[in-house]
Amino acid sequence: MSKEKPSLPKGTRDFNPEVVGKRNYIFNTIKQTFQKFGFQPLETPAMENLSVLTGKYGEEGDQLMFKILNNGLHEKKEPEKEKLQENWNKILQQPFSTSAITERALRYDLTVPFARFVVMNRNEITFPFKRYQIQPVWRADRPQKGRYREFYQCDADVVGTKSLLCEAEIVLMLDEVLTSLGIEDFTIKINHRKVLGVLYEFLFLQGAKGTDIDLFVAIDKIDKIGLDGVRKELIDKGYTSEMVNKLFEILSLNGSFEKINELEDKVKVALGEIRDDVEGNSKNQNNTITKIMRTPVGFVELRELREYLNNLGFKNFNRLALDITLARGLSYYTGCIFEVKVNNVKMGSISGGGRYDNLTGMFGLPNVSGVGISFGVDRIYDVMEELNLFPESAQTSTQVLITNFDASAEVYALPILQQLRAANIATELYPDQVKLAKQMTYADQKKIPYVLLIGSEEIASGLLKLKNMRTGEQESLRIEEILKKLAV
Amino acid sequence: MSKEKPSLPKGTRDFNPEVVGKRNYIFNTIKQTFQKFGFQPLETPAMENLSVLTGKYGEEGDQLMFKILNNGLHEKKEPEKEKLQENWNKILQQPFSTSAITERALRYDLTVPFARFVVMNRNEITFPFKRYQIQPVWRADRPQKGRYREFYQCDADVVGTKSLLCEAEIVLMLDEVLTSLGIEDFTIKINHRKVLGVLYEFLFLQGAKGTDIDLFVAIDKIDKIGLDGVRKELIDKGYTSEMVNKLFEILSLNGSFEKINELEDKVKVALGEIRDDVEGNSKNQNNTITKIMRTPVGFVELRELREYLNNLGFKNFNRLALDITLARGLSYYTGCIFEVKVNNVKMGSISGGGRYDNLTGMFGLPNVSGVGISFGVDRIYDVMEELNLFPESAQTSTQVLITNFDASAEVYALPILQQLRAANIATELYPDQVKLAKQMTYADQKKIPYVLLIGSEEIASGLLKLKNMRTGEQESLRIEEILKKLAV
Repeated sequence: MSKEKPSLPKGTRDFNPEVVGKRNYIFNTIKQTFQKFGFQPLETPAMENLSVLTGKYGEEGDQLMFKILNNGLHEKKEPEKEKLQENWNKILQQPFSTSAITERALRYDLTVPFARFVVMNRNEITFPFKRYQIQPVWRADRPQKGRYREFYQCDADVVGTKSLLCEAEIVLMLDEVLTSLGIEDFTIKINHRKVLGVLYEFLFLQGAKGTDIDLFVAIDKIDKIGLDGVRKELIDKGYTSEMVNKLFEILSLNGSFEKINELEDKVKVALGEIRDDVEGNSKNQNNTITKIMRTPVGFVELRELREYLNNLGFKNFNRLALDITLARGLSYYTGCIFEVKVNNVKMGSISGGGRYDNLTGMFGLPNVSGVGISFGVDRIYDVMEELNLFPESAQTSTQVLITNFDASAEVYALPILQQLRAANIATELYPDQVKLAKQMTYADQKKIPYVLLIGSEEIASGLLKLKNMRTGEQESLRIEEILKKLAV
Repeated sequence: MSKEKPSLPKGTRDFNPEVVGKRNYIFNTIKQTFQKFGFQPLETPAMENLSVLTGKYGEEGDQLMFKILNNGLHEKKEPEKEKLQENWNKILQQPFSTSAITERALRYDLTVPFARFVVMNRNEITFPFKRYQIQPVWRADRPQKGRYREFYQCDADVVGTKSLLCEAEIVLMLDEVLTSLGIEDFTIKINHRKVLGVLYEFLFLQGAKGTDIDLFVAIDKIDKIGLDGVRKELIDKGYTSEMVNKLFEILSLNGSFEKINELEDKVKVALGEIRDDVEGNSKNQNNTITKIMRTPVGFVELRELREYLNNLGFKNFNRLALDITLARGLSYYTGCIFEVKVNNVKMGSISGGGRYDNLTGMFGLPNVSGVGISFGVDRIYDVMEELNLFPESAQTSTQVLITNFDASAEVYALPILQQLRAANIATELYPDQVKLAKQMTYADQKKIPYVLLIGSEEIASGLLKLKNMRTGEQESLRIEEILKKLAV
């Protein structure tokens, strides 16, 4: 057996009990809210066939997937080097094909596996289908602070309904989850892909050559690469400098979510000015532009979302912002889009999502509209650490440690140990008869709140010493009193 | 985007909400017991470096590991075929080395990652360290009924103490977990590697050439390949036919766990007979044999384990069996070993474990004794399905569905929806105004126990119709009465 110093793969982490406790506190809070809103848990395998994943996340995604070596190559009963070498040679004699080497990869997100599940089980599923999924995903990204190669996603999606009630419920869930976690100062940014679509139509009608997705992907990067970076990217994609100027003028408009109409008017005025500014528009072009301006679907739906929130009794409109620079990087969004930012904390968005009209279309099942949201647990964890929001209950496990003085004290302690456990009090008896100081250190480091000291005196009197490890207080109590005091 | 029919990798599964609910019921029961006994959760990454995993599971394990293609080979910014082809050529010009292709694999069990964690964190950990871990593992085994390539293990281990209290607590936990799940008729088989070791010593002193591990691994297969298969395997490994006969004679002895002494005496008598039977033993050999028979460590520890169980007030000795054919396949066990079988159900063991003296030795940290147990959740699931043991509570999520008649009923329903949720009652409003039959089917298939019907009549009177979906009963109630009735 090798005795080299063991290490972890780059970009991966162990979670020790304290961290697992805190992470579970976040997971459980999210789960409770999802369930209260009628979402049910789904789990899919870590591996997916490459044919399912390839081409769904753009070129970058295909490159960053962790691919699994085919079994044929490592499953042979006689894997001598020559045999393996021969296999590789055989592969290389053929025109190069990665499928000879790998046919599976680790899942890259939870959305594509969800779409795959829906398509494969379309006949058994009752639509609308509300599922949540909390599982790790893997990306071979360059690791850096806050970016890992294995991380959890927490997704909730409804598919099979176009009702904007779902969007409203997403806002309610975002608000409830964060508030339950103790995060109070945050902003839910909202936009609609068709608001951005109107902008694109405008640019397109005036001769833009880039696609709408090019436009959305570029706008999405404003926070990362700044306006100048976005300008460069758009010009590279075939937009003119003049168009970018007009676009930026409109993107500088912003407003509260309650005052959608005001913003809509502002956007219309700005679009109108652009229309009038540009020479050489044909009459047809002008008519189309006027029509787009008259019924901008994006704004209509945003107003309906506001109406739902009002009727649901939602009060925290101050936490919502209509942000027309919000684009979201993923190509499949078609309706409302969301992103959540905690204010006054240096941290990217902690949640995001939106509506998609055709997610399952990639697997041959068209016209299944859905909307979903995803929580970034690693970032929420860091925010909660920074703001000191984890309650003590997220960190303790064992409630009582019984010390182990000597053989007779141990025999006396054994039934007491079981009595406490029978009352659902998590209890340990220190398993070895070592120095008391060592046993107390154990309780201390494991954050055990109570230590029960049993020596010959206690055995004689039946009065056991219960020490509160936080206050240092010590009481002499009968076992019945201890059970009563610690009852859960 | 490809539109081929999507599929799952062989040997993997999706878990739909109903199955996840039932699985979580098992996981939560196990977790609660682990925590009550002072175990804390640990999580390790899905990937481990191959240097950590290789050589830890025997030749078969090395072959059945799912290996991950190196990033260098699929992370290139310009992954044109030529470039990739060039990479492969480069690899093949060198003496063949798999590390050029793969340096990581998916974890194969939870024990080796646990040992790796302990060694890497030896200075931060407070020993004895009691951890539990519930995570999936991956094996490229040939899939068949009940055998998957991705499956969960539920492990609890204590390291850093030799106290047999830990073994006793493992028996208590096994008993508590299965009883809590409603499984009542099961047998916890117990043996000790050093009882088997005595048998080996006997055979060795009489000239056996196979190793002790050969012997244990062969005995472990009695259930799978039968006595004849084991005989063949042992003879292949260098044992004589005569030795195998003697061995089988002793292995046919069995007894209740309470009557360890009786069995010990029987084994001693049998060994004595063998000793006397064999001609040509030297005086030295006979002395050694006599010494082994006088203080058989295995039996001493089994008696101590029984003593602990007695003192802990354990009552279910009828569920324990001393089974000297129990060997467990893994090479690292050195002390007590356990295996649990549900009686009257066709199913292999649902749990197993034992003590190991030197698990972390593989990573250069010797002399850390530990003992652990592992639950097989897939098998427990199948047993519970067969015995119909899942409670209804493991399968329902949403409590109330509010029907959606028309626009005005929807507006009326929205604040009620939020009132129910505020009272922690998981509630949904059907998002679309479709036929009532379709909405009822939705409630039915999602096993929602109550449907709240709101039409114009109900809006006018304020008396809402609450339908119990199990009994079919319907009541007209004010919202306050409904809240009271459904309070959780």
